[in-house]
Amino acid sequence: MGADQPLVVLNQLGEVTGRAIEALGPGLRVINDEHTPAWERAHEADVLLTAPRNGWRQAPKAPPAGWPGRLRWVQTASVGIDFFPPWIFDVAQVSCARGVAALPIAEYVFAALLAHNKALDTRWVQSSEAWRREFQRAEQQPLGLLHGQHLGLLGFGAIGRQVAQLALAFGMTVSALRRSDAGEFLPGVRRAESLAALLAESDHLVLALPITAETEGLLNAQTLAHARPGLHLVNIARGRLIDQEALLAALDSGRIGAATLDAVYPEPLPDGHRLYTHPAVRLSPHLSWSAGEVQQVTSAKVLDNLRRWLAGQPLLDVVDPAVGY
Amino acid sequence: MGADQPLVVLNQLGEVTGRAIEALGPGLRVINDEHTPAWERAHEADVLLTAPRNGWRQAPKAPPAGWPGRLRWVQTASVGIDFFPPWIFDVAQVSCARGVAALPIAEYVFAALLAHNKALDTRWVQSSEAWRREFQRAEQQPLGLLHGQHLGLLGFGAIGRQVAQLALAFGMTVSALRRSDAGEFLPGVRRAESLAALLAESDHLVLALPITAETEGLLNAQTLAHARPGLHLVNIARGRLIDQEALLAALDSGRIGAATLDAVYPEPLPDGHRLYTHPAVRLSPHLSWSAGEVQQVTSAKVLDNLRRWLAGQPLLDVVDPAVGY
Repeated sequence: MGADQPLVVLNQLGEVTGRAIEALGPGLRVINDEHTPAWERAHEADVLLTAPRNGWRQAPKAPPAGWPGRLRWVQTASVGIDFFPPWIFDVAQVSCARGVAALPIAEYVFAALLAHNKALDTRWVQSSEAWRREFQRAEQQPLGLLHGQHLGLLGFGAIGRQVAQLALAFGMTVSALRRSDAGEFLPGVRRAESLAALLAESDHLVLALPITAETEGLLNAQTLAHARPGLHLVNIARGRLIDQEALLAALDSGRIGAATLDAVYPEPLPDGHRLYTHPAVRLSPHLSWSAGEVQQVTSAKVLDNLRRWLAGQPLLDVVDPAVGY
Repeated sequence: MGADQPLVVLNQLGEVTGRAIEALGPGLRVINDEHTPAWERAHEADVLLTAPRNGWRQAPKAPPAGWPGRLRWVQTASVGIDFFPPWIFDVAQVSCARGVAALPIAEYVFAALLAHNKALDTRWVQSSEAWRREFQRAEQQPLGLLHGQHLGLLGFGAIGRQVAQLALAFGMTVSALRRSDAGEFLPGVRRAESLAALLAESDHLVLALPITAETEGLLNAQTLAHARPGLHLVNIARGRLIDQEALLAALDSGRIGAATLDAVYPEPLPDGHRLYTHPAVRLSPHLSWSAGEVQQVTSAKVLDNLRRWLAGQPLLDVVDPAVGY
């Protein structure tokens, strides 16, 4: 970049991030605009900081006229890039906010595991009669214990690693499966032999892998048939990983004992969809990433990459369009 | 023990434990009786294996005639000994099941912490309208994050240690206070300067200490006034640790933000007590110890002590009547 030409950043991540960018130095000009679709201003900026919520879910299928304009880099505030159209990769580099949401998502997973195992919402009491009844029931129908149970992980990125660490702290046994054979798991985390084996050995199976052509519908009638009876399935990734009709059939038969779904397809599901009301399903609206601190952490991560760009260093978490994450 | 005289064990912990005792050897005679109060059969046995549920809550205040009979050792299946009358210590040795319930109780604590922080029971959706509304709300009112919050521990026995280990795994900071200055905390667990300091620095305070003359009413109007505003108080120990009227006043003022109470006084509370219905209170009927595996673990622990007795080794977890635990 020439020192005389200011670098223009189209910032769609809010004014707090905008002010932090301006503080990086005088060679930067920031356009704060959360509402105009980014492709309409692509000719004005070198760098785009954006998130799926900035109109991308309504993006046209074909690249709009003038795209990618003068953009040389897109930084997203999301982990997945599947809410963006494929033509976003017409820009030379696209980087994502990988890792940012790993902590809150891992906590969501354990909130879900403990909600399933302890079901405390069915144990709170508001009268002496309920106290006596539930006191008795605790002996006859004891609470579940995570300690000693088996957690299966499909995917082992930043989220899988965080979930595994907590599972080990709870005294669970852990196995995992991922696309690449390369790289190490954590000490104490065993490599599953196959998806069928992972399903058969798990009390809780957590989906923490990206959606790609390879992973779409990975959990279907054929694979779910291998599940340990009563398996608790937790999806904090993407709805399309699961064949939802096959899941409903497996829930009806009891093969799958329960499902906690933070992702479904489409979002939201049409009203009347059985996943809304099946007694063995807990459905949350794609919020497992949510935590007051996440916006700050995301902002810090975006700024860190911007500093690297300014210093001519390689960007972190550049997305490979060929694999999709 | 003479090898010719069989050792008689009065077992009130169920037939599974009874059969396991018989398998220890021919020098043992087991009386399985869960229903007759132990003091009525004290003249028949050398060893008593018992639990509060075996009639002890209705025990007479004064030692019954003939107590302690020929009993030389009482092993309880409970951690606390406050549900037994003081005259139980007329037997030479009383040992307890310390540590057995630490795992399930620690899991209960994290179920409570995550229920408080994430409040997922208010986030599940059953329609597209709810999905859209709660999706928006997750941005405006993000879920709480344990990571980075502070956990305070009052007491640092087996339960406190287990809770601290999990808190550190969640990335919480931890401080603790206990009666004795001796002994070490875990690496990463700081010693609190005082009860007032512990209350002031904690986002969540877990009571994990025995009830004694010293600790009764430890949480009262004076001490609760030091709490960090909004503190979440978790009591998995004994109800009498807390002055319940002072707690209600602190909950009304917002000084204490929420209370998860697995122990109250008396149990159950009389109907109409405000702790049953206060919106900031979750009350469970003394079940945090509950887990299918606890009975097996307790049985294993009792058998281990019995093996020690037979081998003439010192018993584990002998209760000191002077301190009360």
